[in-house]
Amino acid sequence: MKVLITGSLGFIATNLILKLHNQKDYTLIGVDSGESKSNNKEYTENLCAHYLIDLAQKEELKKILKGVDLVIHLAAKGNVVDSIKNPIENFESNAKNTLNLLEAMRETGVTNIIFSSTGGALMGNTKPPVSEDSLPSPISPYGASKLACEGYLSAYGESYNFKSLILRFGNVYGPYCAHKSGVMNKWSEAFIRKEKIIIYGDGSSTRDYIYVEDLCHGLMQAIKLISEKNVESVEKFHLSNNSEVSLNDLYNAFSIASGYQVDITHLPARSGEVTRNFADTKKAKTVLGFSPTVNLISGVKLTFDWIKESCHNR
Amino acid sequence: MKVLITGSLGFIATNLILKLHNQKDYTLIGVDSGESKSNNKEYTENLCAHYLIDLAQKEELKKILKGVDLVIHLAAKGNVVDSIKNPIENFESNAKNTLNLLEAMRETGVTNIIFSSTGGALMGNTKPPVSEDSLPSPISPYGASKLACEGYLSAYGESYNFKSLILRFGNVYGPYCAHKSGVMNKWSEAFIRKEKIIIYGDGSSTRDYIYVEDLCHGLMQAIKLISEKNVESVEKFHLSNNSEVSLNDLYNAFSIASGYQVDITHLPARSGEVTRNFADTKKAKTVLGFSPTVNLISGVKLTFDWIKESCHNR
Repeated sequence: MKVLITGSLGFIATNLILKLHNQKDYTLIGVDSGESKSNNKEYTENLCAHYLIDLAQKEELKKILKGVDLVIHLAAKGNVVDSIKNPIENFESNAKNTLNLLEAMRETGVTNIIFSSTGGALMGNTKPPVSEDSLPSPISPYGASKLACEGYLSAYGESYNFKSLILRFGNVYGPYCAHKSGVMNKWSEAFIRKEKIIIYGDGSSTRDYIYVEDLCHGLMQAIKLISEKNVESVEKFHLSNNSEVSLNDLYNAFSIASGYQVDITHLPARSGEVTRNFADTKKAKTVLGFSPTVNLISGVKLTFDWIKESCHNR
Repeated sequence: MKVLITGSLGFIATNLILKLHNQKDYTLIGVDSGESKSNNKEYTENLCAHYLIDLAQKEELKKILKGVDLVIHLAAKGNVVDSIKNPIENFESNAKNTLNLLEAMRETGVTNIIFSSTGGALMGNTKPPVSEDSLPSPISPYGASKLACEGYLSAYGESYNFKSLILRFGNVYGPYCAHKSGVMNKWSEAFIRKEKIIIYGDGSSTRDYIYVEDLCHGLMQAIKLISEKNVESVEKFHLSNNSEVSLNDLYNAFSIASGYQVDITHLPARSGEVTRNFADTKKAKTVLGFSPTVNLISGVKLTFDWIKESCHNR
């Protein structure tokens, strides 16, 4: 089975490639724009043929799509705050490039795709837990860009016989994230250097954190489902931990992981960022057999130790 | 109150301008790409300053947005079948140009917008009646383009304090449609010439037809709501007739309007087109006081007579 992964030098792709490679059933091709400045290539370059191509380059994409059975589309600009600063740039990367990828697939007869969407940003301030039955109401351009992609996948199902799995990720964290700039990286750095951290708001805002290994298990179950042709046209699943974790809880997990505390500076909450989020993962559990096993304390410890080891000890 | 209308030479805009002008409270500015080849300018050129500008031209838009209180965004490529033939072209016109308009508004401090969305294409084959509580699931690129716009309006509400009313139109019909190519035009032409009509499928597929004068009443109520600053950030309403009309029913209405029958050729149903659609309009009725008064038989007669008069007797 020939699988093309977009954003192949990214955080999630690197974890996924390492897992898929263990299974030996897959020929892996990667596409990455190189924009994220990830150094992950060293971990997977012997396991996956990485092509440095921007998803806007349709003709280049078509060349490497020949013979591909499944596309796993992970590439995206995922930063909410950046999307508010430059909504057009985010739109071009996420919405327009996804449509371009779909067109390249259509023109080469590749019709199976797994798409990484988002639970939190898509649902905005919908009262949690959110699920596949919740009405999307994005509050940032990033969330809107993911909704746009979901809509096109839905349309491509009926209009061109595409089979799609839309996976709405929680806040994914874990190893191979050195190039990322989210809370896990910022706080790891701060705890390593014993510097103060910044919390926007009072620390009560919540997310549904999912350890990347658990997420990859869900992705592999999704690959199985779509390979067995058990997808009508488009199916959506929330992949997260089904648990609501506040920034204050996260601070506590970092204190345990590091063995000490650091000072906190509170700044005003930022618009476009979701106040509360967690997802009901019943459908993923029932249909995909998705069942996360790594709790927050263990996951933060593993992530903190990886960042300490990989970014500071060499 | 200074109102900018996009697609200002279009079918709905022409009807709306004629109605708004009667109220004298509005200074009207129009933007139209000229692409639709509408000849409607003669009806409104003394009532509205029309600018021939493509919505991709942000700097041009910004010039005419200065001092505008409200944008009514009606411009779009609305043909489902064309969108399946060329999804990228439809995306650029509908999704990308809408985002461009939003950016031009943001940069000039204009934050009130009424957006023409769609009930049918957005909901795809969701079991009717659909409402504001239904999950969008577009089955054509056109439907997906409208969902993309709705998502960005939602995001602009929280991220940039926009106030938006999303109006999901049923199948709008009525006078000033000479440049259109939908079923009302095709069938009017065929009945005038006593030629046969084509029905894709067995004629049982349904739509929720709304006469343009009724729709414009809803639009004017929406203008009132947003002017009175009674919109939190984004509100959605279905504006249609709350009645399910099959192609066979429509054929009957045309027979009554013309006084005779024509032959029918049946061709296979087309993918991407919705099988059944009608909307529950309770929310529009309650909040906007929206209450259509023109039934199908009267509306088709008025439309048929207008097309006969305007396109054939001069």
